[in-house]
Amino acid sequence: MPRIYNFSAGPSVMPETVLEQARDEMLNWQGRGLSILEMPFTGDDFKSIMAEAEADLRDLLAIPDNYRVLFMHGGATAQLSLVPMNLLGGKKTAAYADLGYWSGRAIDEAKRYCDVTLAASGKSLAYTDIPPPDAWKTDLNDAAYCHITANETADGLEMNWQPETGNVPLVADMTSNFLTRPINVSEFGLIYAGAQKNIGPAGLCLVLIRDDLLGRATPLTPKVFQYGVQAENNSRYNTPLTYGIYLAGLVFRWLKDQGGMAAMERESRAKSGLLYELIDNSNGFYTCKIAPAARSRVNACFHLGDPALEPDFLDEARKNGLFHLSGHKRIGGLRASLYNAMPLESVEVLARFMDDFAQRRG
Amino acid sequence: MPRIYNFSAGPSVMPETVLEQARDEMLNWQGRGLSILEMPFTGDDFKSIMAEAEADLRDLLAIPDNYRVLFMHGGATAQLSLVPMNLLGGKKTAAYADLGYWSGRAIDEAKRYCDVTLAASGKSLAYTDIPPPDAWKTDLNDAAYCHITANETADGLEMNWQPETGNVPLVADMTSNFLTRPINVSEFGLIYAGAQKNIGPAGLCLVLIRDDLLGRATPLTPKVFQYGVQAENNSRYNTPLTYGIYLAGLVFRWLKDQGGMAAMERESRAKSGLLYELIDNSNGFYTCKIAPAARSRVNACFHLGDPALEPDFLDEARKNGLFHLSGHKRIGGLRASLYNAMPLESVEVLARFMDDFAQRRG
Repeated sequence: MPRIYNFSAGPSVMPETVLEQARDEMLNWQGRGLSILEMPFTGDDFKSIMAEAEADLRDLLAIPDNYRVLFMHGGATAQLSLVPMNLLGGKKTAAYADLGYWSGRAIDEAKRYCDVTLAASGKSLAYTDIPPPDAWKTDLNDAAYCHITANETADGLEMNWQPETGNVPLVADMTSNFLTRPINVSEFGLIYAGAQKNIGPAGLCLVLIRDDLLGRATPLTPKVFQYGVQAENNSRYNTPLTYGIYLAGLVFRWLKDQGGMAAMERESRAKSGLLYELIDNSNGFYTCKIAPAARSRVNACFHLGDPALEPDFLDEARKNGLFHLSGHKRIGGLRASLYNAMPLESVEVLARFMDDFAQRRG
Repeated sequence: MPRIYNFSAGPSVMPETVLEQARDEMLNWQGRGLSILEMPFTGDDFKSIMAEAEADLRDLLAIPDNYRVLFMHGGATAQLSLVPMNLLGGKKTAAYADLGYWSGRAIDEAKRYCDVTLAASGKSLAYTDIPPPDAWKTDLNDAAYCHITANETADGLEMNWQPETGNVPLVADMTSNFLTRPINVSEFGLIYAGAQKNIGPAGLCLVLIRDDLLGRATPLTPKVFQYGVQAENNSRYNTPLTYGIYLAGLVFRWLKDQGGMAAMERESRAKSGLLYELIDNSNGFYTCKIAPAARSRVNACFHLGDPALEPDFLDEARKNGLFHLSGHKRIGGLRASLYNAMPLESVEVLARFMDDFAQRRG
């Protein structure tokens, strides 16, 4: 089989040129006579790979000097605990916006460490929209931080603005929309993002943290998971995820070659716009429950008007090379994930298939 | 440059055939049209990769049915905290053997969670030998577990027997000698091993745990790091290190093809024996401080009788394609790591170089 159209929510499609370079360098990186997989992490070669990856990431997002970039093991799920452990700093409360499935997981985990104040909740909207700014709690004074899930991967919701949190540091889980548009990093105290969506390899989590928030870990936080300890050691307190960092570096360079964040924003709007327009113009053959302004650019979640057609839809899609279009198991329905490495041309193939399927079965 | 002789202590050399297969499958695994890096971890393909890796590991070590195999993120350093967090189970004391540098790191981290009783200490032996059985504390009744570092990677010491711990579960950090010889898993309550030595990819840690030790985590252990939670979820509570698990599976299959643990033990004895014999017969040109019975089969640590020759030794070694022979930065001297993927023929090249260097400079 040739390469499929892979709409998986993560791990997910990677740029083909990145995979080709990884393939070509597998046994002998840059003529050094060994694979990245075999390279000591304390040597100059690996340090330069890591430094270049960080420099390119800083370029891409214009990360200010007072922010540290940490390359952590694991994914976002680990950070659901590590954020409270690292940021509570003696406070007893944190604020969380409940915007969908992953917000809920973050809140459940945070409750094991502190009281959780809801900064906003999409529950009464059945998680089909982001609560408007005036529905957000403004008095967060006692909270150590305010946590948002910038894109709800399972629900297909995305936040396109930041809440006012005053002096309370804003923390964002950007796992699924990280590096898909320009952001103003200085609006956040901390941003974290598992890499297996827009960057590539599972097992790597990027943490961007304002330096005044380092060193607040509660006493029982394992040293290896303390942001301050990893910052002091340039993310080499323990053996880092060397191969994942190498691949991330290749993706960062690819992103720069593609035109950076402005290009990724344009592309993601074009890709998601194509699908949402088709859905809205399908006379109910396809439906999207999410309010237009809150629809995710990276996880287009939709249903068939007649859910009984779903198995046929997925089966015929696969026969056309279009894979991994099932929705999240807790949400159901269908989902097309449209991360950076998903070419517009592939989304056009999906759109043509959806259009054709609607014509034939509608 | 062709592939070097890579004596790195980790990440370290991998079997060339494994790297070749990983290279060939990089863009299209088994004709499925996508890379392992791009594969959803919830699908049947990845689940079968994971199941096969576990089955092969169980075969290799004859792991009894009442032991669970966990594929955790990170390396051994994370487990230095996660072992006490998961195993204390309300007890206030754990026993640790202080056998060298990594024992010390484990003890320092454990002291943040509990009182540490020294089950044995190599300090009075200047960490040149393992304390004999009669020097070990026998009364460990109050300890939640007894922790040993089965191979001291930095010092070059290896334990070749297990202490009597009665009802106190024995916990072993086997990071550097895991899968290098047959072991009787049932002598241990828990074994952990970072993968970047004898398995390959950094970022993966194997945990073998007797099932009665699951579910003892202290309340503030992040859920994702609870052995019980990961066991219930077949190590898929969060996105696992998919690519690392795939590579580990390839290495497990390679180990079976090589003849399994008996072959690895023979090989490791031949490889390390060659170097230690050369060192002992060098009339002091090379020295090894470690007592013969405690010398590591996988990390041969040695010094030059005249330390001033060390830079020349390393420089000439590199010119002969022999790389990463420096000792651990806290220990100094020289170290040749001889993990499973290091062929005997490569160690013979090193031995010839060492012999020649001694002839010319001795």
